[in-house]
Amino acid sequence: MINNDTIIAIGTAPQGAIGVIRISGPKAIEITDQFFFGRNLNKVSSHTVHYGKIKNESDQILDECLATVFIGPRSYTRENVVELSCHGSSYILSEIVQLFIRHGVRQANPGEFTMRAFLNGQLDLSQAEAVADLIASENESTHRLAMNQMRGGVSEKIKNLRDQLVHFASMIELELDFGEEDVEFANRDELIELVKRISLVVGNLLDSFKLGNVLKNGVQTVIAGRPNAGKSTLLNALLEEDRAIVSDIPGTTRDTIEESINIDGVLFHFVDTAGIRNAEDKIEVIGIEKTKDKIARSQISLYLIDASQTTPEQAWEELKDANLNVDSCFLILNKMDLNPYVKPEEYIHSDWIPSERIISASALNKMNVPFIKERLHDFVLDGHIKMDQVLISNQRHYNSLYSTKEALNRVQQGIDNGVSSDFVAMDIRQATQHLGEITGEISTDDLLEKIFSSFCIGK
Amino acid sequence: MINNDTIIAIGTAPQGAIGVIRISGPKAIEITDQFFFGRNLNKVSSHTVHYGKIKNESDQILDECLATVFIGPRSYTRENVVELSCHGSSYILSEIVQLFIRHGVRQANPGEFTMRAFLNGQLDLSQAEAVADLIASENESTHRLAMNQMRGGVSEKIKNLRDQLVHFASMIELELDFGEEDVEFANRDELIELVKRISLVVGNLLDSFKLGNVLKNGVQTVIAGRPNAGKSTLLNALLEEDRAIVSDIPGTTRDTIEESINIDGVLFHFVDTAGIRNAEDKIEVIGIEKTKDKIARSQISLYLIDASQTTPEQAWEELKDANLNVDSCFLILNKMDLNPYVKPEEYIHSDWIPSERIISASALNKMNVPFIKERLHDFVLDGHIKMDQVLISNQRHYNSLYSTKEALNRVQQGIDNGVSSDFVAMDIRQATQHLGEITGEISTDDLLEKIFSSFCIGK
Repeated sequence: MINNDTIIAIGTAPQGAIGVIRISGPKAIEITDQFFFGRNLNKVSSHTVHYGKIKNESDQILDECLATVFIGPRSYTRENVVELSCHGSSYILSEIVQLFIRHGVRQANPGEFTMRAFLNGQLDLSQAEAVADLIASENESTHRLAMNQMRGGVSEKIKNLRDQLVHFASMIELELDFGEEDVEFANRDELIELVKRISLVVGNLLDSFKLGNVLKNGVQTVIAGRPNAGKSTLLNALLEEDRAIVSDIPGTTRDTIEESINIDGVLFHFVDTAGIRNAEDKIEVIGIEKTKDKIARSQISLYLIDASQTTPEQAWEELKDANLNVDSCFLILNKMDLNPYVKPEEYIHSDWIPSERIISASALNKMNVPFIKERLHDFVLDGHIKMDQVLISNQRHYNSLYSTKEALNRVQQGIDNGVSSDFVAMDIRQATQHLGEITGEISTDDLLEKIFSSFCIGK
Repeated sequence: MINNDTIIAIGTAPQGAIGVIRISGPKAIEITDQFFFGRNLNKVSSHTVHYGKIKNESDQILDECLATVFIGPRSYTRENVVELSCHGSSYILSEIVQLFIRHGVRQANPGEFTMRAFLNGQLDLSQAEAVADLIASENESTHRLAMNQMRGGVSEKIKNLRDQLVHFASMIELELDFGEEDVEFANRDELIELVKRISLVVGNLLDSFKLGNVLKNGVQTVIAGRPNAGKSTLLNALLEEDRAIVSDIPGTTRDTIEESINIDGVLFHFVDTAGIRNAEDKIEVIGIEKTKDKIARSQISLYLIDASQTTPEQAWEELKDANLNVDSCFLILNKMDLNPYVKPEEYIHSDWIPSERIISASALNKMNVPFIKERLHDFVLDGHIKMDQVLISNQRHYNSLYSTKEALNRVQQGIDNGVSSDFVAMDIRQATQHLGEITGEISTDDLLEKIFSSFCIGK
């Protein structure tokens, strides 16, 4: 990890009114001062802003801008940092970056500023990863997850567990040093107690991944039902109020309609399966295969029936045919406006979908559509999420926790089976190692490169 | 023009690492301080940066960010300004903006920050307009034009002319006050002298619009020639070295290939007219019509011949048929590599394209392609542009200058024909009025709204 050169990157997206260039490293202030005319930046205090002109080697003015000086370690990277706030022209920004590169400053790699913040002890690894999540956050839940992680929620919990394990590992290793003297510094009962307790916490964290992952990536929700049950109408009704924040998901196939909406902070990806029947040509068949795959991987399904024409018995038949996961299925009795004689309670079936997931509605008139949203939202969160609860949402953390749990299981089995202390010690060390990977106490260059390369440039 | 409320906008484009929110107005600092936790912003000095958290009304942390405080009049708008540098998540940025809007801050209109800078005397109108041009600048010429304009090049020239005219107008109006006494405060000969001088300068500025406009919007350059003359090969050869900065022009029709490259700071839009012959179906005919239109509106044409197979006589025939503007046409003798017997000098025709615009080349081997670029660049600039020359590039300025010139012509005619002083005075006033529109000394709300509404939000 080379860390002692000076790096530069444009931190803002192209085509805004303002463009920010960030420079970090031992020579950040010194080099900027060569091209910045307005104030001697070498002599200003940290955290001050100065108006001036950036001129190139031939004395041409590239821009009039504001330079903010941060003197390390009082900066994001803990190095000397200068931020130039320029006019947001890509031409200007790139000319300025090239000017610096011609004078010994290096173009930063993706995430390199945050990597330096990590390497210089400003953030731990889990917090650094949260920075990327925070930038990518699109709704209240992802924002809260990332913010909690960035503020150290996950790290604290993990570090605490790890410290206790490290302590025990040292004790056991101490025993090994004494070799044949047969001392026992680490009380086996206490160790088993600890391993159990940590396994429980790790297990809870692993469980939280399901929700954390859903919150981070959105809830895949399929809208199924016979043709003409009103699926597309329902999708439109669900979208309408939130039209402003609707987004087409990139890569949406032409044959399934897919739209995302944010319901009270939780992101739902709705898949309208219109067109799943009546496959004729090859392309359509491929589309339907994709749709089926989406249904299989969906976390919630809304099954629509035209209640004005479908008896409870027919509805149950249809549902069975549709082969949906009953535990996460809602039955929507649609077109209630067309038939005043429909009795919703008749659709309740003892060992089938519970009554709170059977909702009568009229997608056309938007009757009960807000209620459907409310139920969807509650179904996902359903007492799971508390304000400050620590949730795992990062696949890498999940993997490390999973390996930790496996190692802890081996510890427990080892003690139960009376295996020798050195094997137990090895497994405990492995558990601490996996926990350490999460916060970066244990890290390799490869791991760091992999993590930070997924960042955007300039962060 | 309401100017005493506090406004807010996101100044950066979506999806960067950094997002900047700008707040300006009398209460900018006070309101920000309500939601910023880290330092009491009411008590900090101007031009200082502070780390803190933005929390909403329910004490939820929206982001950790840096707040920069500018105390008016030492700010862009000359009002109190706070800039918040946040994580670049659209969700976070919009939550923060909404928080401020809930507490009496108004979403800024496009260009409103710059409009305030204008209204508060920080910039004149022509300079304010240059800010938008600067942000949009894509290459060295547009950048230089905008920078020159922003730094007051145009304004100074215009103000100078206007001051002299205003002086004369006052003198003549003074004569009118004395009514029948028949005094002459304004020497008619001097006035005619002045009007002539100003007309000349205005005329030069009007002429500079042609170049200014070309530099700002790029030079439309058509590549024409018989099928298989090597047009597409030439286009590719022209592009190759600059591939990194090639951009597809949006709206390019499928039937003409259009690519832009920056040659030494001047933007050229090349139109490859491949396929102009052999029209068969309707869509193709429409495409060809469009191509012809593009040729007609192009500022330069490169006419290619396969010199290995085309005699000078044939070349002249082809050129006549092609109906191109001879004054801005280059004849490219292509495929020189295929026939060692071709003598370029034979293609020079006395009353036709001059020898400096006849270039032998081999597009395939890139022979002389850099030379073609050089000639194109020189042809456009050809002694026209000097480092600090004032060029008009703004259509609005052109229109105002044009009206000024008309008014000045009327002044001159009026004096020549001995019309009464009050008519002359009126025309002089009109000329000063039109000149004043450029810098904004004369402006209406409508005009301002029209100008600033073309800005991006947050500037």
